[in-house]
Amino acid sequence: MRWIASHPSLRLSIATSTSENGRSVADLYPALAAHVDDLVFTAPDLDAIATCSEVAILAVPHTAALGIVPALLDRGVRVIDLSADFRLTDAAAYEKWYGLPHTAAGLLAEAVYGLPELDRSRLPEARLVACPGCYPTATVLAALPALAGGLWDGSRILVDAKSGVTGAGRGVSAATHFVTVNESLAPYNVGVHRHTPEMEQVLSAAAGSSVPVLFAPHLVPMSRGLLATVYIGIAARVDADEVLAAYSDRYVAEPLVHLHEPGRMPTTAEVRGTARASLGIHFDSRTRTLVAACAIDNLGKGASSQAIQCLNVVFGLPETEGLLAVGPVV
Amino acid sequence: MRWIASHPSLRLSIATSTSENGRSVADLYPALAAHVDDLVFTAPDLDAIATCSEVAILAVPHTAALGIVPALLDRGVRVIDLSADFRLTDAAAYEKWYGLPHTAAGLLAEAVYGLPELDRSRLPEARLVACPGCYPTATVLAALPALAGGLWDGSRILVDAKSGVTGAGRGVSAATHFVTVNESLAPYNVGVHRHTPEMEQVLSAAAGSSVPVLFAPHLVPMSRGLLATVYIGIAARVDADEVLAAYSDRYVAEPLVHLHEPGRMPTTAEVRGTARASLGIHFDSRTRTLVAACAIDNLGKGASSQAIQCLNVVFGLPETEGLLAVGPVV
Amino acid sequence: MRWIASHPSLRLSIATSTSENGRSVADLYPALAAHVDDLVFTAPDLDAIATCSEVAILAVPHTAALGIVPALLDRGVRVIDLSADFRLTDAAAYEKWYGLPHTAAGLLAEAVYGLPELDRSRLPEARLVACPGCYPTATVLAALPALAGGLWDGSRILVDAKSGVTGAGRGVSAATHFVTVNESLAPYNVGVHRHTPEMEQVLSAAAGSSVPVLFAPHLVPMSRGLLATVYIGIAARVDADEVLAAYSDRYVAEPLVHLHEPGRMPTTAEVRGTARASLGIHFDSRTRTLVAACAIDNLGKGASSQAIQCLNVVFGLPETEGLLAVGPVV
Amino acid sequence: MRWIASHPSLRLSIATSTSENGRSVADLYPALAAHVDDLVFTAPDLDAIATCSEVAILAVPHTAALGIVPALLDRGVRVIDLSADFRLTDAAAYEKWYGLPHTAAGLLAEAVYGLPELDRSRLPEARLVACPGCYPTATVLAALPALAGGLWDGSRILVDAKSGVTGAGRGVSAATHFVTVNESLAPYNVGVHRHTPEMEQVLSAAAGSSVPVLFAPHLVPMSRGLLATVYIGIAARVDADEVLAAYSDRYVAEPLVHLHEPGRMPTTAEVRGTARASLGIHFDSRTRTLVAACAIDNLGKGASSQAIQCLNVVFGLPETEGLLAVGPVV
Repeated sequence: MRWIASHPSLRLSIATSTSENGRSVADLYPALAAHVDDLVFTAPDLDAIATCSEVAILAVPHTAALGIVPALLDRGVRVIDLSADFRLTDAAAYEKWYGLPHTAAGLLAEAVYGLPELDRSRLPEARLVACPGCYPTATVLAALPALAGGLWDGSRILVDAKSGVTGAGRGVSAATHFVTVNESLAPYNVGVHRHTPEMEQVLSAAAGSSVPVLFAPHLVPMSRGLLATVYIGIAARVDADEVLAAYSDRYVAEPLVHLHEPGRMPTTAEVRGTARASLGIHFDSRTRTLVAACAIDNLGKGASSQAIQCLNVVFGLPETEGLLAVGPVV
Repeated sequence: MRWIASHPSLRLSIATSTSENGRSVADLYPALAAHVDDLVFTAPDLDAIATCSEVAILAVPHTAALGIVPALLDRGVRVIDLSADFRLTDAAAYEKWYGLPHTAAGLLAEAVYGLPELDRSRLPEARLVACPGCYPTATVLAALPALAGGLWDGSRILVDAKSGVTGAGRGVSAATHFVTVNESLAPYNVGVHRHTPEMEQVLSAAAGSSVPVLFAPHLVPMSRGLLATVYIGIAARVDADEVLAAYSDRYVAEPLVHLHEPGRMPTTAEVRGTARASLGIHFDSRTRTLVAACAIDNLGKGASSQAIQCLNVVFGLPETEGLLAVGPVV
Repeated sequence: MRWIASHPSLRLSIATSTSENGRSVADLYPALAAHVDDLVFTAPDLDAIATCSEVAILAVPHTAALGIVPALLDRGVRVIDLSADFRLTDAAAYEKWYGLPHTAAGLLAEAVYGLPELDRSRLPEARLVACPGCYPTATVLAALPALAGGLWDGSRILVDAKSGVTGAGRGVSAATHFVTVNESLAPYNVGVHRHTPEMEQVLSAAAGSSVPVLFAPHLVPMSRGLLATVYIGIAARVDADEVLAAYSDRYVAEPLVHLHEPGRMPTTAEVRGTARASLGIHFDSRTRTLVAACAIDNLGKGASSQAIQCLNVVFGLPETEGLLAVGPVV
Repeated sequence: MRWIASHPSLRLSIATSTSENGRSVADLYPALAAHVDDLVFTAPDLDAIATCSEVAILAVPHTAALGIVPALLDRGVRVIDLSADFRLTDAAAYEKWYGLPHTAAGLLAEAVYGLPELDRSRLPEARLVACPGCYPTATVLAALPALAGGLWDGSRILVDAKSGVTGAGRGVSAATHFVTVNESLAPYNVGVHRHTPEMEQVLSAAAGSSVPVLFAPHLVPMSRGLLATVYIGIAARVDADEVLAAYSDRYVAEPLVHLHEPGRMPTTAEVRGTARASLGIHFDSRTRTLVAACAIDNLGKGASSQAIQCLNVVFGLPETEGLLAVGPVV
């Protein structure tokens, strides 16, 4: 809603919520008060959505989108889906990692993966965009040039990711209680996180061969910000200049990706509140390992602003429209 | 610089800094990289400033502005001054609280106090605007309707203020070390803080009589955000409806002040990254005390965005131009 | 449990919990693993408690203690109660502020208020101790010398309190979600908080006349630590030396209260993880107001360690036994 | 000083500091007030130290210990050194990574590495103990069983470490300013951190062959706590049970190391304020990679308490004397 509020070509016509049904948006988010008039959350009603909207941005839990997406498409509403339900191209992999059958597998071929920096060619006029979440976005942006550029030595890729709490959503639990999170650092779901197959799918396609990924997420005591530190073995014939060139070439023209000079690493503060990703690389010649780190805002390039970025491309608007605001610098 | 970057009528032509002289702005603040081209901090040079600027925003320590402001005015540059040097109208009070003579007292009568919600009539075409900082801004906004509206019972006014660390500036010291601030709450300068006479001056003018203020600031473990909780004795003849009416009437048309319904108090999260103030009031009939709380962002309405707001009025631009961006909602 | 683990005269024989029933203590709190053997939380069973315990420390929500306390006393178990149910001496006040009848009003006369620094004379061999929680403890310690010493001018007393999140207990809710609390400061229940009548009861008894208190709590983004900043009007005949003397005399021999030199205020960091309170006072002669600030750890002097301190006195142990460990200094 | 205050066999006779010379310890650290009498920081004077002390704990910056350690040993004072100056056995490696010659290389053979869990046999009656700091301690504890147990496949070992700010010491700088650290995550010195050769030295000795380490530290917005996530390739012939057995066998009798059940990872909260390390392991069979994570308190097992633990062994005291206090559980 924040991004829509300042987007010159978009108008928020309906906001649905089961838990906040009946509450005014301004009451829940006073910061939005001046931008949402008297909009009130309503219960999700697909017909109501279809009546007033050309496109729906879907931010529901994984598996919940399986039923909603087909129903919206049937009603002629395009969907930008932030769930994981249409990101894996292989229904069997979905069933294995998510533990239930994919009931809308017929849409998987049509769904377009919503990471423009990976491939924006299929986005224009897409009916269904499956936007990657914060972990795959940061990981893929960090690893892509090395894998697509043939620098990789074939060894397993390690992704040590650190996320602020907005990555976990608004649900309340002991795990997101202030006292649990504050002044603590906690690894979780190491090696078994459900985003692993998505990373492997995208990176394998980029590399042209099967890429094994070990993904280790950690929860960090901060609200916003995610950093993926990705460790990639580099083939013996490749030198530091080639590594740098692969990254520079890939991102030089990307408006929402910033690549630091070699050796300088990004901080999550750089991207707080923004729609951008910030990258840094260090090629460690001692161990022939590339360390590529990517910082994003979980709620910016890691979720909401990525949805708007895709929406812009789908509808033929300038890709960065509404997305260039400077976040708080400190 | 963040506010200027997204302001349609302003262009940042020069940025000076003694400590960062020679460094690119984008290197210091990567978040600004896409908005400041290759701008480099230069050493302060008044002639250089005068050559390229119509107006200078001055963010130097107290007392440092005493020499700079007259020199800039002499060169035909208007000044929006964020220091305390031209906010007290009485040079003797300045000398008493700041411990040194006011060497540019001749400008005090001309300087316009930069809080538009208090009085914007003298701002258009002003040469010198003395913007209040975060503590006086929040305190005055919280107390003003009660004092200007004649609700006050004449007893001393207590200001218990809580500030994030951005209120203390960028200087490094043991007091702003992460480990000192984190997980601690610390009162400081209770009863002796230099902003006390400024609060008394402004509120006394509003009340039409001398208002004694006891000001107790506290440092809170957060970066941005300031809340002033102001306790005001209410005259016996006044009831709760009159209190509410005084606040509603004063702020209903103010575009950058939000007044909550009675009983709901503001949080600093509501204004994070924004140019707005958020207010809440509770009239405690048991003790006949009005609790008025005002939340602002130290670097927004408490400093930078207030400077831009004043600048807009000085130059005849729409007062909120460039200031309505929605900050991060969470 | 942490305090009991290092107390030479206590042994933890049973730990009950409805929500954690069946879970090992070490699994929930790995930091306690080396100190609790294989203790497992059991469902609350009054007979089981009575079988193995001489004394029970009760940490249940307000109103829940109404039924449990009489039953434990009937079974010959002494009770140190951390709820508010036996702290108000007037059953009518309880009913007014807590909204339901006091069903064990017959015990109110017997219950001993558990703040040793206020009055420890009735604690030895008490059957029922009603320990004050964090807000009343800090407030009473800050205001007591002024009121008991006859310094007060009779005007309403303002308590502006700032608390870390441990003061709110372990329950999960949107209000204690990390993202809600972090980087925000939030007043709540201003003027209507249920601890108000308890403060008035204790301070009125100390002053010998009715003391009106306006209590304004604020939630601060930190886990542990509470600071009550108390503003007390001082009678015209009293000077700064008398104020200081009243505080020094009251606390000089108290082993768990530290009084700073005049003008130095306490921080919550000073008492983190400890059983102590730290006080500072500033007499503002301009407004004839005493600012007395008291810092405690919500889970130390604000709750658990206060229970142990009272228990020590009840059983004739040295009052500070097990309570002098130095908390983390930073 | 905190550990010494509660240690039954130690007495703090002198505390030296250049920056705090003349200040009372209680003034700097009010939390210690009840435990340090009227001890005052004095300027470092080796003769004064030798007059009153049997053993000195040295916490000076790297390279500063080069001059002090020999002088103290000459005066008959044993030294527990927390600097890096006597941890590398190879003076050439020291010169390469620290950029200056080792001027006391004659002591390197005598210095005993102060990690009792690695090897405590040489500690009794040692004159000079070189204690590892927080990064090597956590890394070695995490990797040791795999390397000493012959599980490793010979590939480079990745150490992705996350540290709270106490790891950086008390010095003030822009990098440790609250506003820089808070709400940000920052990798630094990736691949070039000076603790790399120390990790390689210790782990190579354990493995019996040269172990290449890539070390990537990150600064996390918290005060205390360090987590090293170590990624170790496991030889093809080794299965998960053997991995678990190697870790269990190594640490089952260690009083200050806690090993979680397989799959459960430690959090830094578990060890806050304690002298313990907490470990968790996950063997990822998909990529044949062991993820071993070790959490410590930077100022506990990562520094001060480790010094006391070594001191206990040197002087024949029980190894855990004074070190079993339970830290704040939340």
